[in-house]
Amino acid sequence: MIAQTPRPPYYAVIFTSLRTPGDDGYAATAALMDELVAGIPSFLGMESARDGVGITVSYWESEASILEWKRQTDHRIAQQGGREKWYLQYKVRVCKVERDYGFGNHL
Amino acid sequence: MIAQTPRPPYYAVIFTSLRTPGDDGYAATAALMDELVAGIPSFLGMESARDGVGITVSYWESEASILEWKRQTDHRIAQQGGREKWYLQYKVRVCKVERDYGFGNHL
Repeated sequence: MIAQTPRPPYYAVIFTSLRTPGDDGYAATAALMDELVAGIPSFLGMESARDGVGITVSYWESEASILEWKRQTDHRIAQQGGREKWYLQYKVRVCKVERDYGFGNHL
Repeated sequence: MIAQTPRPPYYAVIFTSLRTPGDDGYAATAALMDELVAGIPSFLGMESARDGVGITVSYWESEASILEWKRQTDHRIAQQGGREKWYLQYKVRVCKVERDYGFGNHL
């Protein structure tokens, strides 16, 4: 799904990753993180696709809340699991969305 | 692949889309666009995955060059094909990358 986001400015976190083979607890942790992040008031939505490389973009009202989520305890434990088990490489890019436009229903 | 990008600030264009069924010239046009965009000096790299939703993130040195690419003639023709044939919906978000960090080789 394409995330419904408000008028800019808002923030985006682009998380690009290469996974290790196998699951090893990854899917359960990812599902828990999806549930936790959805409960944060500043969280606006997320888009995700994996096809060799994985790209997850999350959208946020404020930059401060991005840092809060980074430091949230369960998320920190998941990040450590990511470095130890689930990811070969990843890159996180924190961005300010300055303008947007779209095509099709509601975009 | 994860794009190699310089230290922030730089720009990102997040293109999220839902495709129509079938190819109908899409793959050939996409390949041509990839070739053309790679020739633009300000273009830094691109990451792409499709898995239901498609997410393509392109990285740029300057915002001005993003607008130039949007207006490039072949690209405008491709955009029109996109609206007429290839996409049900899409959203384009133009962002300034303010900070980044990574894990693994060269990130």
